[in-house]
Amino acid sequence: MTTARKNAALAAIADGLEAASTEIIAANADDLERGRATGLSDGLLDRLRLDEARVGALAAAVRDVIALPDPVGTVVRGSRLPNGIQLSEVRVPFGVVGAIYEARPNVTVDIAALALKSGNAVLLRGGSAAESSNRVLVATLQQALRSTGLPPEAVQTIDAHGRAGATALMRARGFVDVLIPRGSADLIQTVVRESTVPVIETGAGVVHIVLDATADEQLAVDIVHNAKVQRPSVCNAVETVLVHRDAAARLLPPVLEALRASGVIVRGDERARALDPDLPLATDDDFATEHMALELSVAVVDDLDAALAHIRRFSTQHTESIITRDMANAERFLAEVDSAVVMVNASTRFSDGGEFGFGAEVGISTQKLHARGPMGLPELTSTKWIVRGAGQVRG
Amino acid sequence: MTTARKNAALAAIADGLEAASTEIIAANADDLERGRATGLSDGLLDRLRLDEARVGALAAAVRDVIALPDPVGTVVRGSRLPNGIQLSEVRVPFGVVGAIYEARPNVTVDIAALALKSGNAVLLRGGSAAESSNRVLVATLQQALRSTGLPPEAVQTIDAHGRAGATALMRARGFVDVLIPRGSADLIQTVVRESTVPVIETGAGVVHIVLDATADEQLAVDIVHNAKVQRPSVCNAVETVLVHRDAAARLLPPVLEALRASGVIVRGDERARALDPDLPLATDDDFATEHMALELSVAVVDDLDAALAHIRRFSTQHTESIITRDMANAERFLAEVDSAVVMVNASTRFSDGGEFGFGAEVGISTQKLHARGPMGLPELTSTKWIVRGAGQVRG
Repeated sequence: MTTARKNAALAAIADGLEAASTEIIAANADDLERGRATGLSDGLLDRLRLDEARVGALAAAVRDVIALPDPVGTVVRGSRLPNGIQLSEVRVPFGVVGAIYEARPNVTVDIAALALKSGNAVLLRGGSAAESSNRVLVATLQQALRSTGLPPEAVQTIDAHGRAGATALMRARGFVDVLIPRGSADLIQTVVRESTVPVIETGAGVVHIVLDATADEQLAVDIVHNAKVQRPSVCNAVETVLVHRDAAARLLPPVLEALRASGVIVRGDERARALDPDLPLATDDDFATEHMALELSVAVVDDLDAALAHIRRFSTQHTESIITRDMANAERFLAEVDSAVVMVNASTRFSDGGEFGFGAEVGISTQKLHARGPMGLPELTSTKWIVRGAGQVRG
Repeated sequence: MTTARKNAALAAIADGLEAASTEIIAANADDLERGRATGLSDGLLDRLRLDEARVGALAAAVRDVIALPDPVGTVVRGSRLPNGIQLSEVRVPFGVVGAIYEARPNVTVDIAALALKSGNAVLLRGGSAAESSNRVLVATLQQALRSTGLPPEAVQTIDAHGRAGATALMRARGFVDVLIPRGSADLIQTVVRESTVPVIETGAGVVHIVLDATADEQLAVDIVHNAKVQRPSVCNAVETVLVHRDAAARLLPPVLEALRASGVIVRGDERARALDPDLPLATDDDFATEHMALELSVAVVDDLDAALAHIRRFSTQHTESIITRDMANAERFLAEVDSAVVMVNASTRFSDGGEFGFGAEVGISTQKLHARGPMGLPELTSTKWIVRGAGQVRG
């Protein structure tokens, strides 16, 4: 499949989404009505909702994917062997990508566009709450594929098969090459536990920032504030700040003041409370929680060793940052913290495929196999070894 | 952990294995006696057996690993972002590598040496048939680690915990980063089915060679013979030859003659039997079997499409090769055959980490996630993103 044909199909998908906007919004209204009747929370209803602007944003996101470089065919490495054989490792599509996700119909379009651009077919299992929306979206995508001469079966939903379909998808090793769960920690853990198909885990972020003894005050205030407040509902937002005891009296007051001015609920361990008795007590549960809200915990630590020990205990190995002027401590932090993304003097909000220059983000992998950290299009491909000989046999 | 310290530990391991040779062989004799009493086949007893030469070969293999470049710390990619952030992706150890394998005590040493060189700790679960041998081998490895100041716990066996230990290992997601099964198809399928830990599947090879209409006779004879006879018991040996109908009368007789002269039992489909009535009939079972012996099936196909269809049906996606002078067909074969290694005019026996120049081979992956085809030391590492900032926050 050439890049040009894939891009033509994506352009038809973007146009098709805009043309089908009324129909998509009508189907979505059915889902919303059912969701209200079954008592979905306001937050979930908002994630489920599609209006004209959001359908337009879906089409725009598909057009962004057109602009991305095609990873398929890229030579990863290669060499001419002493026996004259030409060896190269090239990127190829996985084949079939499965996705299991919850009531966010935008994931249907996002994952399908990324999978198609990387040459993959995609099997979608969305949440039952978005079933009507997804049915119309998938029909729209299939019609666009058909109109550009591509097989409409390259995008399929198994929503009509209910839970049995999800179970079959998770057990389809040999038919489905990789499975990407998107959604709550519960959903992801179920998929990890039940799947024989290889899974790319895009896990939660219990993200830490360490304020070292030498941290610059302005950097500490700006980075902690940005990492919590700029967008609190995402996985790269900070959840815990660990401050060196020698800097606690200097740094905690301005950091807390900035956070509180933006409405952040801050909890502290006993040592932080000794400096600021207004802090509610932070429990181990708080330190283990991805709040995804304007909430944050602080703890005072004796030294870098204690900070590293806290991170080892509570981190989900997503993203951690240290604010310091001590380059020995910075290098030690970068080397010893075993997370997908480790930072010095930067906001954890930069842990993002778009910020890394990938153009689009498939998700942020918190596992160590295949892909770690923000994933772009190349992470939706495998590779193949190509051997070109002239009759060589092995001696 | 520096490369120098890891290499010093590996040197101590090689020396330690040679020094403990008598003790290792005595423990192995216990395993062999038990194996004979429980009716192990001659083939399995041979794989289990350690003598002075084989212990020497184990030590030599460890010294080969010393010579390999250390993958840890290698920068995979990196860039300076427009906001001044320096971004780099560097290779890091997985952490803990698990291995589940059968009665081959050499795997104990091989996997431990490769894991240590790539900075990983390793948890070993060998077959119960090799329990005494493995106990002494692991004790020897741990003593060598201790003598060079490394934690002996970096190499551990869970053999003493029996089946419950294997089950716990397969369920230790979050503690064990990757699990590598080595052995029979049954063992590998059990691990794939039972594990929540990510698995690298090193599967069977039902390997095909296609003799195209334009195949050179000498190349066809030499390559098929080499691919079957040079070492029939390995996964990159050919199992099925598909010959184009326009070349069947020209190529089958010399190919069959060369194979039979080396004692290969050849079976054929009806169309091959029409050309050579002495061929026993090859069934679908034969076409689906990895013989690992001097046995091979041939079939006559109408064209490249029919060859590709046969491969799609029976291949384990390990390695396939086409012998042809038609470069359009060669390129189509390379593009359309979805196997880890695809070849033109070369013996499938080159599908091997040593032949690819990796220096050592961890196995040959038949899955598409993380590693595909022959795996070297870099495939025993993950990566980590390092972000160096100067106070950047996200706008």
